[in-house]
Amino acid sequence: MQQAIAILDSGVGGLTVVKEVMRQLPREKIIYYGDTARAPYGPRPADEVLKFTGQIVDFLIQFDPKVIVIACNTATAAALEEISSKVSVPVIGVIHPGARAAISATNTGHVGVIGTVGTISSGAYTTALKQLSPYIEIVSLACPLLVPIVERGEFHSKSTSLIVRKSLLPMTNQYMDCLILGCTHYPFLRETIQEVMGPYVKLISSADETARETSTILYNKGKLASGDTLPIHQFYCSGDARLFRSIARQWLGEQIGNIPVLWQVTRLG
Amino acid sequence: MQQAIAILDSGVGGLTVVKEVMRQLPREKIIYYGDTARAPYGPRPADEVLKFTGQIVDFLIQFDPKVIVIACNTATAAALEEISSKVSVPVIGVIHPGARAAISATNTGHVGVIGTVGTISSGAYTTALKQLSPYIEIVSLACPLLVPIVERGEFHSKSTSLIVRKSLLPMTNQYMDCLILGCTHYPFLRETIQEVMGPYVKLISSADETARETSTILYNKGKLASGDTLPIHQFYCSGDARLFRSIARQWLGEQIGNIPVLWQVTRLG
Repeated sequence: MQQAIAILDSGVGGLTVVKEVMRQLPREKIIYYGDTARAPYGPRPADEVLKFTGQIVDFLIQFDPKVIVIACNTATAAALEEISSKVSVPVIGVIHPGARAAISATNTGHVGVIGTVGTISSGAYTTALKQLSPYIEIVSLACPLLVPIVERGEFHSKSTSLIVRKSLLPMTNQYMDCLILGCTHYPFLRETIQEVMGPYVKLISSADETARETSTILYNKGKLASGDTLPIHQFYCSGDARLFRSIARQWLGEQIGNIPVLWQVTRLG
Repeated sequence: MQQAIAILDSGVGGLTVVKEVMRQLPREKIIYYGDTARAPYGPRPADEVLKFTGQIVDFLIQFDPKVIVIACNTATAAALEEISSKVSVPVIGVIHPGARAAISATNTGHVGVIGTVGTISSGAYTTALKQLSPYIEIVSLACPLLVPIVERGEFHSKSTSLIVRKSLLPMTNQYMDCLILGCTHYPFLRETIQEVMGPYVKLISSADETARETSTILYNKGKLASGDTLPIHQFYCSGDARLFRSIARQWLGEQIGNIPVLWQVTRLG
């Protein structure tokens, strides 16, 4: 049987990684777990996020995946290191791919980062960016209101636009040429974020970049799927199945339009 | 002693990878070999390119590098697989990073590739792109006149502009939204290539992307350099040292402006 790429998130945010993996690696089978019943992770203490992430990894490892992608910045900051040391499959987080893409994209060396309270207060992006280059200047901002909007599926309402504007206000007069979307939920709000930041700030999606690095790592391990049989993806969530499925179908659109997909609700812990 | 990133090319083309590695990973020490006396590799038979590449790798391996980057598309197509199986350090080619970046960047799935005769006739980009996604449409073109221009250091002359225009003419009426610069020499001519292809075709530099994947691979192996001592880079070439140094200084500019660099001529074979 084809080994899958396992992808997990606190909720629907990791679907932004799923979409890119489906687009960049259409031969790969995906098993997704979104902990929608316990989202958002952002405001939770790090040890609780570590515990929840461990439970999801224990669940996903049963499917014998070839790689596990922690498609949640908060969980990456809190749990990547410990989880990596515990399981035998490669584990990929979203923070280093985002940091590498920003270093590659910036011309001025001035980079902004937005994320959850958990991600920003961990300082994980600053550490990752400074590990690559001591010359990078970083401005960070926690935007705690954005994940709940996305989890409710409200991407384009007037109040969403207002909340994004208000959340990003402290960033609009900062000097930067790149802004890292340091939360996999944020690409759902990409258009509004781009509008607020203006056309000269490149948005770096940690989600897109992680999909690409997953491709790099699978290639280097000789683990890319071959063959032309379309894979059957599996989606699990812990909360409202109808809302999850509606957001997933809306976001993934043509990527899952014509192919069979398994949906299931599974609570952990 | 700090382990270096070893980078090789048929000539000065790999300097485009060097520049990006210096920018994205300023802590890393670089040892470069440019086989300027035997450039271009593009028109040479594959077994000769394999032999020359093997000689350079034998030379570089003496420095105990942490990774070897074959920063030449022609050499990657002819030698990556065999060299990888022979040495114990990771060997990175430029073709798969370019292919992955194009798959990530394209919206329409229509991708163009330009390269040397050796690279294009090997079909290596088509293979790499199709391995990732069966839905990609590819148009390829060999541009044998471009490497000699760059090796002479003529980046901005009127005749250069004319040769680039004439070489790319068959690509200008093809449907594509990305064009892979499938030769590490081509970023030297980037502005002219962009002018000829128009603003709606994204140029994907296999050089830039390889620098980024080198960063990914070193990170995943726990091999990124730390510390704040500036490394002393070493540059070797087999041909005209003065021309090589002049092109390198011009291209690398501020990247090597204030730092000590060793230059040396070494012939192999």
